[in-house]
Amino acid sequence: MGGDQGPHVTISAALMAVNHLPHLHLILCGDSSVIAEQLEKQHFSAHPQISFIHASQVVEMDDKPAQAIRGKKDSSMRKAIDLVKEGKAQACVSSGNTGALLSIAHYVLKTIPGVERPALISALPTHDPEKNVFLLDLGANVFCDSNILYQFGLMGSVLAGEVDNIDEPKVALLNMGAEDIKGSDTIKQAAAQLKENPDINYVGFVEGNDIFNDKADVIVCDGFVGNVALKTCEGVALMVASKLQQNLESSFFRRILSKILTLPVKKLYKSMNPDQYNGASLIGLRGIVVKSHGNANSHAIFAALMEAVKEVERQVPEKIQHKLEQRLLHRP
Amino acid sequence: MGGDQGPHVTISAALMAVNHLPHLHLILCGDSSVIAEQLEKQHFSAHPQISFIHASQVVEMDDKPAQAIRGKKDSSMRKAIDLVKEGKAQACVSSGNTGALLSIAHYVLKTIPGVERPALISALPTHDPEKNVFLLDLGANVFCDSNILYQFGLMGSVLAGEVDNIDEPKVALLNMGAEDIKGSDTIKQAAAQLKENPDINYVGFVEGNDIFNDKADVIVCDGFVGNVALKTCEGVALMVASKLQQNLESSFFRRILSKILTLPVKKLYKSMNPDQYNGASLIGLRGIVVKSHGNANSHAIFAALMEAVKEVERQVPEKIQHKLEQRLLHRP
Repeated sequence: MGGDQGPHVTISAALMAVNHLPHLHLILCGDSSVIAEQLEKQHFSAHPQISFIHASQVVEMDDKPAQAIRGKKDSSMRKAIDLVKEGKAQACVSSGNTGALLSIAHYVLKTIPGVERPALISALPTHDPEKNVFLLDLGANVFCDSNILYQFGLMGSVLAGEVDNIDEPKVALLNMGAEDIKGSDTIKQAAAQLKENPDINYVGFVEGNDIFNDKADVIVCDGFVGNVALKTCEGVALMVASKLQQNLESSFFRRILSKILTLPVKKLYKSMNPDQYNGASLIGLRGIVVKSHGNANSHAIFAALMEAVKEVERQVPEKIQHKLEQRLLHRP
Repeated sequence: MGGDQGPHVTISAALMAVNHLPHLHLILCGDSSVIAEQLEKQHFSAHPQISFIHASQVVEMDDKPAQAIRGKKDSSMRKAIDLVKEGKAQACVSSGNTGALLSIAHYVLKTIPGVERPALISALPTHDPEKNVFLLDLGANVFCDSNILYQFGLMGSVLAGEVDNIDEPKVALLNMGAEDIKGSDTIKQAAAQLKENPDINYVGFVEGNDIFNDKADVIVCDGFVGNVALKTCEGVALMVASKLQQNLESSFFRRILSKILTLPVKKLYKSMNPDQYNGASLIGLRGIVVKSHGNANSHAIFAALMEAVKEVERQVPEKIQHKLEQRLLHRP
């Protein structure tokens, strides 16, 4: 029940989700009096698909991960993850403090055997309106050795295959050049490991400008690089939109005409709207955890809930585990 | 005389530049018969402001740096840098192999005393049409320790101050979060060093989306991260433009109207056109070297030539050296 916009957006997203999926059951974790008050405000004293669990603590946005693990055992975030651990929930969705969520989830759920570190992964739009690209890691791990990058490639490949139904997803490493000699030893070793695995359709190095074309379905990098790339995307998209607005409004005549053109511009915005791409998944854990933007609105949280539902239906953690076991069995 | 588009674009950029600046003298390095032929094609058998020096070798785009240093001593790239070393030219502009250019320039010119590694720096557009932001390193150094990042901050500050006339340029470090606890130890140490220097207006950590707002005039990161960020910018801008085009052309009625709106869209493109931001400077060397895009057209190469002229006029290397000496003198 975190997030910058307050609990009412979470409640309204929850109501949207249960109305959309009659088989979905949501357990809201947080201050029960606040949840009840918000439900009432939205004209529901109770909903058959929604239950709630009281939490007396809140993980604040500036809580350090270690603080959150040790000192916030009765927080809404911890309780939600505990429910997944206990099998009482099949997935956890949170828009709270990312670092704390990562640490608590890692601490409580543990990683899948063979996975050293969980990763944050999200879908981004591409030139092709029908196609997304999955980028990982988006900030869970500042540094990654070649083994970890290799595991990210494997996990990303499973997620893209299962969630987006891509046959043999093209997996690439994000580098500062497409040539084999470019980049660090770590990335070159990761490339060799990915190339070696016949289960992974490894397509080589790609550069920042390749994220949005058809070169890859899954792009792997360390969390620092992924975080910068993701936020740079957001920054450029915002700047282009604001510059276009300025230019469209720069004369009266065009201002009138621009009104007629708001539809395609809105359509463009919608096709690139971060809300519909909301929901970075924390993969590599023995359970499903989806991170929503801190400042997500109800539509964005709804998108994150739907992402979690998809991962439950497609049994993503089980499939990652299966692929890893297969790989270990096949290893010479 | 390198570049993907052949020597005619370089010659035509050279002619534009000498016509624009009557005090400019250009020395073209390359195959003299090709240069003469190209000049003739553009109706000049000779030009009083243009001379040329024959080079029998060419650094190819796939030559490794060490190969280029040892095996291509008679290449156009080497000859151009030698001219700067010998004081016969005040700056070198090249659109050839970036890695080779960096290595040859580093090898021949050496760094300014106190500078460990040269960096690639370039100006990028921001929300404010009147304001650029300088990003470095763009790919010269895959990894950088905190000292190197600190030196980049200092050099970037001098360049922004001198070339863009910014008073006390705001210097920031690119990180995966704005909070002090975020990122690697290296970046935290660099932050401490930058904060300590009273000559640098250090403003803290920024994230990828902050590149284009007013938080900083100079943004520092290692070459891997900078290269990915820069190319991601190009990729997003291209995607947004192509999506807008698709949406504008999606109905007959809007197709007609969109014709009337081509002016603002063109204006937008112009304001963000990579050509006008062409010319990444290689700073930290005892001489001025400007790298133009490999696939630059003549307008882009012209922009790179103008960047080199500005740096010569503002004596950028001397000012970096002076700042570093001052800093060393002031050090407790």
